[in-house]
Amino acid sequence: MTSEIQTLTLKGQADRRLRAGHLWIYSNEVDVAKSPLKNFQPGEQVQVQSANGKSMGMAYINPHSLICARLFSRETKYRLDKSLLVHRLNIALSLREGITDQPYYRLVYGDSDFLPGLVVDRFGDVLVVQIATVGMELVKDQLIDALVQVLKPAGILLKNDSRIRKAEELPEYVDVAYGEVPKQVPAIENGVHFNIPVFEGQKTGWFYDHRGSRARLADYVKGKSVLDVFSYVGGWGVQAAAFGAESVTCIDASEFALDHVESNAQLNNVREKVGTLQGNAFEAMKMLIDEGERFDVVIIDPPAFIPKRKDIKSGEQAYRRANELAIRLINKGGILVSGSCSMHLGRDRLTDILRASARHLDRDIQILEQGGQSFDHPVHPAIAETEYLKAVFARVLTAS
Amino acid sequence: MTSEIQTLTLKGQADRRLRAGHLWIYSNEVDVAKSPLKNFQPGEQVQVQSANGKSMGMAYINPHSLICARLFSRETKYRLDKSLLVHRLNIALSLREGITDQPYYRLVYGDSDFLPGLVVDRFGDVLVVQIATVGMELVKDQLIDALVQVLKPAGILLKNDSRIRKAEELPEYVDVAYGEVPKQVPAIENGVHFNIPVFEGQKTGWFYDHRGSRARLADYVKGKSVLDVFSYVGGWGVQAAAFGAESVTCIDASEFALDHVESNAQLNNVREKVGTLQGNAFEAMKMLIDEGERFDVVIIDPPAFIPKRKDIKSGEQAYRRANELAIRLINKGGILVSGSCSMHLGRDRLTDILRASARHLDRDIQILEQGGQSFDHPVHPAIAETEYLKAVFARVLTAS
Repeated sequence: MTSEIQTLTLKGQADRRLRAGHLWIYSNEVDVAKSPLKNFQPGEQVQVQSANGKSMGMAYINPHSLICARLFSRETKYRLDKSLLVHRLNIALSLREGITDQPYYRLVYGDSDFLPGLVVDRFGDVLVVQIATVGMELVKDQLIDALVQVLKPAGILLKNDSRIRKAEELPEYVDVAYGEVPKQVPAIENGVHFNIPVFEGQKTGWFYDHRGSRARLADYVKGKSVLDVFSYVGGWGVQAAAFGAESVTCIDASEFALDHVESNAQLNNVREKVGTLQGNAFEAMKMLIDEGERFDVVIIDPPAFIPKRKDIKSGEQAYRRANELAIRLINKGGILVSGSCSMHLGRDRLTDILRASARHLDRDIQILEQGGQSFDHPVHPAIAETEYLKAVFARVLTAS
Repeated sequence: MTSEIQTLTLKGQADRRLRAGHLWIYSNEVDVAKSPLKNFQPGEQVQVQSANGKSMGMAYINPHSLICARLFSRETKYRLDKSLLVHRLNIALSLREGITDQPYYRLVYGDSDFLPGLVVDRFGDVLVVQIATVGMELVKDQLIDALVQVLKPAGILLKNDSRIRKAEELPEYVDVAYGEVPKQVPAIENGVHFNIPVFEGQKTGWFYDHRGSRARLADYVKGKSVLDVFSYVGGWGVQAAAFGAESVTCIDASEFALDHVESNAQLNNVREKVGTLQGNAFEAMKMLIDEGERFDVVIIDPPAFIPKRKDIKSGEQAYRRANELAIRLINKGGILVSGSCSMHLGRDRLTDILRASARHLDRDIQILEQGGQSFDHPVHPAIAETEYLKAVFARVLTAS
């Protein structure tokens, strides 16, 4: 790489979305006559210019990707280097430290923290990093240096095994990039303790995004029987038990995840209240229905049934089926907590799926609360793609 | 009134929305050949029938109103009488008592609690009732009896002075319907104490709907300077002070409201932290800007700027102006809490107004949390009109 900065020129009107605050440039928005994409190296830092010659700021480019470039600064004087990374990390850290004094949160949430292509989760003195783009991968060493300078961690894990890296032609790997990273790391959420399998778990090992909604469980579960469907390592279920539920059953397909449910329950002295059921969630719910089991509170927080736009139809059907089964398992007057992490499923669509599921079963529902992403997963108001999480609390009644 | 039940027949397709769960029938959906509206008395209870003769349940009618009838039961055997009211009140009460053991909440939220036209707020042993329709007004005596039976209150106030009663040709009045109602009644919200002027205050005297969002203030205000614009009697501002804010300034046009801010601050031993500024909110914000005043947290929770659909354009402009002024008063890295109770302003429109306001001032914002109505104002998923409240928490930064 040289320090010579090339210019990426946009077609007319393609600057509009950027002016509104968005950070992405699609490949079909580039004026390839003025700035042919073959002239750029993947990950190269470029100055972005509108059709009428106004500077839009600095971006890194990937000429082979649909999202062809992502702005990392509105100022042309900046480069994506250790200095800018330290600056951005400090801004991100000040948000989290202003709200909580416990070092367990998503420290960096990509575009929303003005660090496109980067996610960093903090588990005390261990950081787990996910890089999604070539532009960020190229500054990996500066990033590690910046993280060490700002946070003085004991260890940094690069958990770069996401399939989305394929779109950027990046290899998948998991690597301790700094210091030492134990097999399991601690997390405390809403006062409840967890051990997180950062190497073998899903994504960074933990999902901090539901923190606020899980906190709300406390008002709903005291003395109640609770079912946690798609429990993973017990984020909802173990917190429900710690908040005073009488009994909790966790369903997950993964024995590995359920082993962690049990050890996490033990960690909070609620092991005797938490049971596990290994199997396909749909099959397990059907079995419980057939056996006549009913619960006061059913939490259903599935993986993304709509990973891509083309999956909307089949995914919505899956949400419908899953929520109907969940509703059938709820005692009269009981509570459904229905989660969705599918960006392509809008909040209104999810509540309408719940409405239709309930009507189909001749039940009424009342939507009591609607949770979203916690403060450590801020939504960028110009980037709809940064908002994905829903948690709907509803009461299920016999029809009026 | 006779006990003879007339039938209200719908046009073809007009049953669809009811089958989906909605409870309202518009006057243009009635088959007036089969059931001429002039045959019905305002408030009369009728059986509703679809065009193909299927029963839709029981409704009360107002032949002079655009919303011509409202279902109060899917079962034809029920009448809106003391017995059904007791049943519905018990269902409503069980929701609230399942979540909180303190008797301060909206006990009945209209359609969402299957009691169209009725609102009841509970302030300990005093109930404040608002009736919006002739159908509910006609059963006022049974309602009072039912409330006395279920809740054994010391007093019930009929706060029937809302302008929306005009649409139903109902008189406006305020009347103690049962027992004794003191000038001020207590409310406890999130552990903070208030005295509520139920006779002279706005609506029922208090707005329980923001309870959950106000609870979230605790994480944002410790040691901070806070501005509460459109403070009314101090719902946000006094709670901020009680949660540990260093100083709070409340702006309201009403001297009466600000007197209550001061006494409510006193009640929580935070009088010395809370100041008031009487005047038009827009003018007061401009004055503070000119004086160079800045705050760590600015809460702006205006009255509905969009009372009706026709007001959308002017109302959105008012939200834009108000939020721009609020953003200008925020310290770098500070927090905006932006509320809206306008049903016609969607959540996405509000966040877009905040985005545009910030961009116009060359600031970036991060949406940290989005609150809605508390559990005691449940949303009926088939009745979009039951959802109106937004509270957006955002961090305001200099542009990246």
